[in-house]
Amino acid sequence: LPELLQSVLKENDTKARELRARFQNAGVFVVSIVSGPGAGKTALLEKTLAALQPHSRVAALVGDLATEFDSERLARTGAQVRQILTGTVCHLDAEMVDTALEGWKLDELDYLFIENVGNLVCPAAYDLGEDARVVLLSVTQGEDKPLKYAPIFHGSDLAMVSKADLAHAVEFDFSAVRRNIAAVSPGVPILVVSAKTGLGMDHWFAMLAARSVTI
Amino acid sequence: LPELLQSVLKENDTKARELRARFQNAGVFVVSIVSGPGAGKTALLEKTLAALQPHSRVAALVGDLATEFDSERLARTGAQVRQILTGTVCHLDAEMVDTALEGWKLDELDYLFIENVGNLVCPAAYDLGEDARVVLLSVTQGEDKPLKYAPIFHGSDLAMVSKADLAHAVEFDFSAVRRNIAAVSPGVPILVVSAKTGLGMDHWFAMLAARSVTI
Repeated sequence: LPELLQSVLKENDTKARELRARFQNAGVFVVSIVSGPGAGKTALLEKTLAALQPHSRVAALVGDLATEFDSERLARTGAQVRQILTGTVCHLDAEMVDTALEGWKLDELDYLFIENVGNLVCPAAYDLGEDARVVLLSVTQGEDKPLKYAPIFHGSDLAMVSKADLAHAVEFDFSAVRRNIAAVSPGVPILVVSAKTGLGMDHWFAMLAARSVTI
Repeated sequence: LPELLQSVLKENDTKARELRARFQNAGVFVVSIVSGPGAGKTALLEKTLAALQPHSRVAALVGDLATEFDSERLARTGAQVRQILTGTVCHLDAEMVDTALEGWKLDELDYLFIENVGNLVCPAAYDLGEDARVVLLSVTQGEDKPLKYAPIFHGSDLAMVSKADLAHAVEFDFSAVRRNIAAVSPGVPILVVSAKTGLGMDHWFAMLAARSVTI
């Protein structure tokens, strides 16, 4: 299995490189979002698409095993949205992204968001050609998760601590989570947000305007 | 890959059948617990082991990619606990369980709990020889998750809705989650719990005493 997996990953890397070149040529800034189930990826994207839409051309691809709920929810913002259904596959890959983009004119887009399947393990090894990968961890999931799911935190360009409005209710320890993220991904920027209250969202929108997830 | 996966699953099924026969001969009731990251598997087990320990012989296996936090936390209850580290593998399999059990006298145990890796996708297809599989969904993860992660809800014998103490803060819709669980797994029992406040925990302990997860 490891050998086969290596050849699958190698093939994915080749396809991801092609995608990355296409995205750069088209001038579209591509952000992928990963997290476990229910950390708030769709809520974050909903607010993000709505904020960008008035002055930018925005699209999103949304991965799930099943259901079109997320794409329907995001399409209400007015952005172009497509759902990728993976069946039993626990992550997106570059080939799925490539197929889903068919017919879209990338050079008419400013931003493309890719919401991965809710999973803190499988998506880690699959490059999707994105400019930046954002990992979301909700305060309700616990401060220890970066250490337990190190590869995905290590492989992300920005760590967002989401659902900050619930931090008090779950007695969340922000310094512990900062320590744990820094331990597996030294120097990665950390942004605390709440899509519900808006906390941190202006900072996030400013990053997107600057086309960079550095703080 | 599908063919290889089928042969992997077939091998796992054979090993799981052997385990199930050993568990039954030894008279140990085996419960596995699955969920996404941070739904409260370890908190549930912590309370469960502490409640059973005084009058039963209890052990637990705990799966994680990395870190021994969960086994250390559970060992404080006095139960026998072993950590299974999976590295990059997103689920436990029957072989890992078999290896982890080495040296334990199963006929001296009343209960064995198996906490899977935090993942709502990968563990679904892997029988571990358990008597009952319990899937946990926390109220903070959202009512739609049973429809999105149907196989794991379909393959479980009991669905627990956890962190009920946060239901009000997240405006959780219990009838929606009941409807969604019933849609993918008709007739599966549903138990609402909070390890923090104790809600539903007596019902859970009564199930364990009866060695059955039916309500």
